[in-house]
Amino acid sequence: MTNTLAPFAPPQRILMGPGPSDVPAHVLAALAAPTLGHLDPVYLRIMDETRQMLQQVFRTQNQLTLAISGTGSAGMEACVANLVERGDEVIVCVNGVFGGRMKDVAERYGAQVHTVDAPWGATIEAEAVRAALAAHPRTKVLGIVHAETSTGAHQPLEEISTLVHDAGALLLVDAVTSLGGLELRVDDWRIDACYSGTQKCLSCPPGLAPVSFSAAALAAMDARKTKVGSWYLDMALIRNYWGSDRVYHHTAPVNMTYALHAALATVITEGLDARIARHGLHHRALRAGLQALGLTYIPARSLTSLNAVHIPDGIPDARIRTRLLEEFGIEIGGGLGPFKGKAWRIGLMGASSSRRNVTTLLAALETLLGEEGGASTNSGAVAAATKVYSA
Amino acid sequence: MTNTLAPFAPPQRILMGPGPSDVPAHVLAALAAPTLGHLDPVYLRIMDETRQMLQQVFRTQNQLTLAISGTGSAGMEACVANLVERGDEVIVCVNGVFGGRMKDVAERYGAQVHTVDAPWGATIEAEAVRAALAAHPRTKVLGIVHAETSTGAHQPLEEISTLVHDAGALLLVDAVTSLGGLELRVDDWRIDACYSGTQKCLSCPPGLAPVSFSAAALAAMDARKTKVGSWYLDMALIRNYWGSDRVYHHTAPVNMTYALHAALATVITEGLDARIARHGLHHRALRAGLQALGLTYIPARSLTSLNAVHIPDGIPDARIRTRLLEEFGIEIGGGLGPFKGKAWRIGLMGASSSRRNVTTLLAALETLLGEEGGASTNSGAVAAATKVYSA
Repeated sequence: MTNTLAPFAPPQRILMGPGPSDVPAHVLAALAAPTLGHLDPVYLRIMDETRQMLQQVFRTQNQLTLAISGTGSAGMEACVANLVERGDEVIVCVNGVFGGRMKDVAERYGAQVHTVDAPWGATIEAEAVRAALAAHPRTKVLGIVHAETSTGAHQPLEEISTLVHDAGALLLVDAVTSLGGLELRVDDWRIDACYSGTQKCLSCPPGLAPVSFSAAALAAMDARKTKVGSWYLDMALIRNYWGSDRVYHHTAPVNMTYALHAALATVITEGLDARIARHGLHHRALRAGLQALGLTYIPARSLTSLNAVHIPDGIPDARIRTRLLEEFGIEIGGGLGPFKGKAWRIGLMGASSSRRNVTTLLAALETLLGEEGGASTNSGAVAAATKVYSA
Repeated sequence: MTNTLAPFAPPQRILMGPGPSDVPAHVLAALAAPTLGHLDPVYLRIMDETRQMLQQVFRTQNQLTLAISGTGSAGMEACVANLVERGDEVIVCVNGVFGGRMKDVAERYGAQVHTVDAPWGATIEAEAVRAALAAHPRTKVLGIVHAETSTGAHQPLEEISTLVHDAGALLLVDAVTSLGGLELRVDDWRIDACYSGTQKCLSCPPGLAPVSFSAAALAAMDARKTKVGSWYLDMALIRNYWGSDRVYHHTAPVNMTYALHAALATVITEGLDARIARHGLHHRALRAGLQALGLTYIPARSLTSLNAVHIPDGIPDARIRTRLLEEFGIEIGGGLGPFKGKAWRIGLMGASSSRRNVTTLLAALETLLGEEGGASTNSGAVAAATKVYSA
């Protein structure tokens, strides 16, 4: 047990799993700035600026935009808990772990949940949503995952948003793996409640959940007949704490807010459009390299931030990932649920989305697939990626 | 808006409010160590060691001892949500903000709540608990606050614990402002569920909630007929994530765990008994100085970690606190609820509990009370504290 005061010096990894992603040194430095009181005027300014920058990154004017004091999953629960009352009808689109989780959360808060199901790796078809809304005309909320971290599927949202609003329902979107890396337009796409995490495309350590609620979502909350089931996640209390009155609710995670503030400033300095283009470029390069290695993508529509590929027969999943970690210092993710042992999830999120990381991973994978799987160690994976960069 | 990449350099405060307390430089350094994946073997070792050190600091053998990924209030809600099912009878002792909050949380999770009330600043009498248990023989859980941060009252627990267990109920204790600074014996006092925060006597930034559950609490959870109302705080899921199987639940706040690990190592290196004695010493010195200034304590039984005093008539609350902050860099807390504008809450928690801080605050207060209130600026406050240190 290292319960001494020896400095903690973890190995320096390259984080290319499903999150957390690499955190830039200046964000870690902000994290370690001296702790202020949570009512200190200097900290209140940081909170205000964080709200404003979150609005920019969500591309929204929503007043109720802030960071929940918990991880991305707390953001999901905050959205569901505040929009749902016992007996409300809710449709949840399920095509992976996180849709399934949203269903579980909604049921715990008393919703009558109907699902629109699609195979893992597929996206949800607008037609299926139209049919579900027609079958359940009293639907209050439709929940859907923009970036399904368990399968890498990239869900189109615009047509579905129109259907949802035409049916008089609210649109709830999981943007955990898309915010700050993929196109996400909360206002233009009329998303009513959106949540994310800090440890994906924002390249901040895990621990906070950015959320944004539309005026319609706010009206639905104000019209509640019952208290929100969770005290900790009750937006009526949280918004007063983040509001100008600073009504005491909990003690904000002060240092994590510093880090999020620095991470958001980094996104805005790079520019959202440039950042999204960067995620696209490195995804195309990685894809070309992985295909040269004989690896095929699981989703037809892949996220640029997360690349889920089938593990070829005969390749030992755990051994390759362990060797990547121990010998090359690279983390990639394994599969979840039906993909356990059958998929790799390779993240290119935020600071991790770089030519250096793409090249390093491809070279390492080529070596290990050769040694462990008897494949050629000269498949041209790096050259294939290089061709993308040169185009 | 400072949405640039300029380093964030907050002013260096002395944190003597109701939390957060001063965070030592080596804990901030641990916080800023490179982020690891939450399934990285090195991080799993940090989680395991954190669990073990939490057991030491809670003075418990409870297997189910870990840190919830939220602030202290999330710890409260985790305890309540997991122990309470709809219709359960619960007694909550209310003598300040946090007892009142526990009542609210329990009601949201469907409990039928009975209260034992005492005036703000008072502690709960064992006789009142005995009467409540007799009046409500089906009580499943009795909740009480060990260290009431809103009033500074220090609640004795041993006799009450015996009454609760004799009645066949579970004892739930709020130890947010006592863990790591005041005597707290989870096993000896037979506390069944206990929660705390990181930003008080542990001197870690806010953001995690240490919790511990007894075997009896675990049995009550296992006997539940319904799912826990909150998915994020469902201990059945969280314990599998912290357990040897590491079943995915959420993404742990990796860097915050580093900081908690370093903060706990600091507590254990100092020694719990020495640390508790230190909190006692500086409390006695501060008390002597405050009394020399004419300030009187609100609670008859005061916490050593938090000193709540009446603001004398004619003294401008906000102005004194603003001047303390701006001119001396010292943060103290104002009053909550009925004490708003009428009390100061002065924390001596963790690293903030030091002779330097006691002396600095007394000298500054003496100056400001003289300038703002027309009192003597030579009341002998520092000398009174010095006498305690010399005894």
